[in-house]
Amino acid sequence: MTSREYHYKVQIFYEDTDHSGVVYHANYLKYFERAREQIMGAAELVRLWREEGLGFAVYRADISYHEGAEFGDELDIRTTYAKESDYRLIWTQEAWRPGGHKPAVKALIHLVCLDRDKQLKPIPPIPD
Amino acid sequence: MTSREYHYKVQIFYEDTDHSGVVYHANYLKYFERAREQIMGAAELVRLWREEGLGFAVYRADISYHEGAEFGDELDIRTTYAKESDYRLIWTQEAWRPGGHKPAVKALIHLVCLDRDKQLKPIPPIPD
Amino acid sequence: MTSREYHYKVQIFYEDTDHSGVVYHANYLKYFERAREQIMGAAELVRLWREEGLGFAVYRADISYHEGAEFGDELDIRTTYAKESDYRLIWTQEAWRPGGHKPAVKALIHLVCLDRDKQLKPIPPIPD
Amino acid sequence: MTSREYHYKVQIFYEDTDHSGVVYHANYLKYFERAREQIMGAAELVRLWREEGLGFAVYRADISYHEGAEFGDELDIRTTYAKESDYRLIWTQEAWRPGGHKPAVKALIHLVCLDRDKQLKPIPPIPD
Repeated sequence: MTSREYHYKVQIFYEDTDHSGVVYHANYLKYFERAREQIMGAAELVRLWREEGLGFAVYRADISYHEGAEFGDELDIRTTYAKESDYRLIWTQEAWRPGGHKPAVKALIHLVCLDRDKQLKPIPPIPD
Repeated sequence: MTSREYHYKVQIFYEDTDHSGVVYHANYLKYFERAREQIMGAAELVRLWREEGLGFAVYRADISYHEGAEFGDELDIRTTYAKESDYRLIWTQEAWRPGGHKPAVKALIHLVCLDRDKQLKPIPPIPD
Repeated sequence: MTSREYHYKVQIFYEDTDHSGVVYHANYLKYFERAREQIMGAAELVRLWREEGLGFAVYRADISYHEGAEFGDELDIRTTYAKESDYRLIWTQEAWRPGGHKPAVKALIHLVCLDRDKQLKPIPPIPD
Repeated sequence: MTSREYHYKVQIFYEDTDHSGVVYHANYLKYFERAREQIMGAAELVRLWREEGLGFAVYRADISYHEGAEFGDELDIRTTYAKESDYRLIWTQEAWRPGGHKPAVKALIHLVCLDRDKQLKPIPPIPD
């Protein structure tokens, strides 16, 4: 079962771009993570980490890049997720430029939950 | 003459912290820049860059660190600025943690305006 | 035809890690890029950019994460590449921790060559 | 008493630059930290962290920027340090571009030592 689609805005600053004039390719992984953390809730993530010693880790990321975002863009990060098993969340995430007709960047991100000893744990409930 | 005080929120994500558990010290310079760009206006900065070939550069940054921000914090970046001369803006910027009694990090940032050949140009008007 | 295997060392600093104690997942894309640039040659990349207006862009990146690198690690980035067509280079890249029995992180990176107008161009020769 | 001068090389990659064509200003703090960690010794820093729960934190950074480093540059980071007191190290660090007649960027960095509860501790001995 796939979640509803979530939207998250990312403003592109100097820090995000490289000398070719577009966003540095690794940075989209940061935007996708910000969007996921917004959905999971920063306060809940902090609680899980401090009280239960649980954190999330990316296990797999498949990214395709179609167009480079530029300084000044406000990207729309569109996210859905599905719980593939008790141990894995699969996130479909896209970065849309303003006025874009298709996503500039798309990714499939597999997330697992680890305890402080880096042992796999069941995915805690995600607030809706 | 000093501007009014502006506020800008920064959510602290995984990407912001380091293994000591607090925000990596260089990252505050990013947050301060985001706050300045919000004040100067992303659209106007893009226009200046594309149409007039003008960009801003940090000439001097004096930063003092009093407390480390943590994952999950929403920082309040407080900013004022003054035009010291036709060629230099001086920004006073602070990062406040939620519930903080004093700034976690403070900085004085000197900004100049450069053309594409890295020559000094007069500071363009800042929208209020 | 696949190239020989290249090795590139990456020292893990504070800046590389996040508060979970391991390297932030997006950073491996940086290490892989550093290794590719070492192979292609920084001076040649600068020449291509300045004289011919050519740069490289990641078109696709498939990354799998098996183990987190830690502060103080010296990673061994192992790289091979193959020219899939006149327009695409495919890089197989792995990050090995010291004493590791398998790669901590593996990636398949598709690279294309773009001119300043972001139009696809044939891949220039790679020095061996 | 001031230490001898140490040299550390930093290769400038895509990741380091921004869309204005030069190195993003916050990144010099990373290069200076890499140089300091090289001097203090990664293995010793790991040992201090794991066995004694001690880490270093930047308390103050005064940076002046004179020239922007570019993609392809190999910067020479020149570092000296002095122990100002039992609780504070002061580092003088410069980034030199190839063939430069003066430092592109200069910084004075104050470092303190903290335990896991963020309490000030005496600076441990630095290997020479």
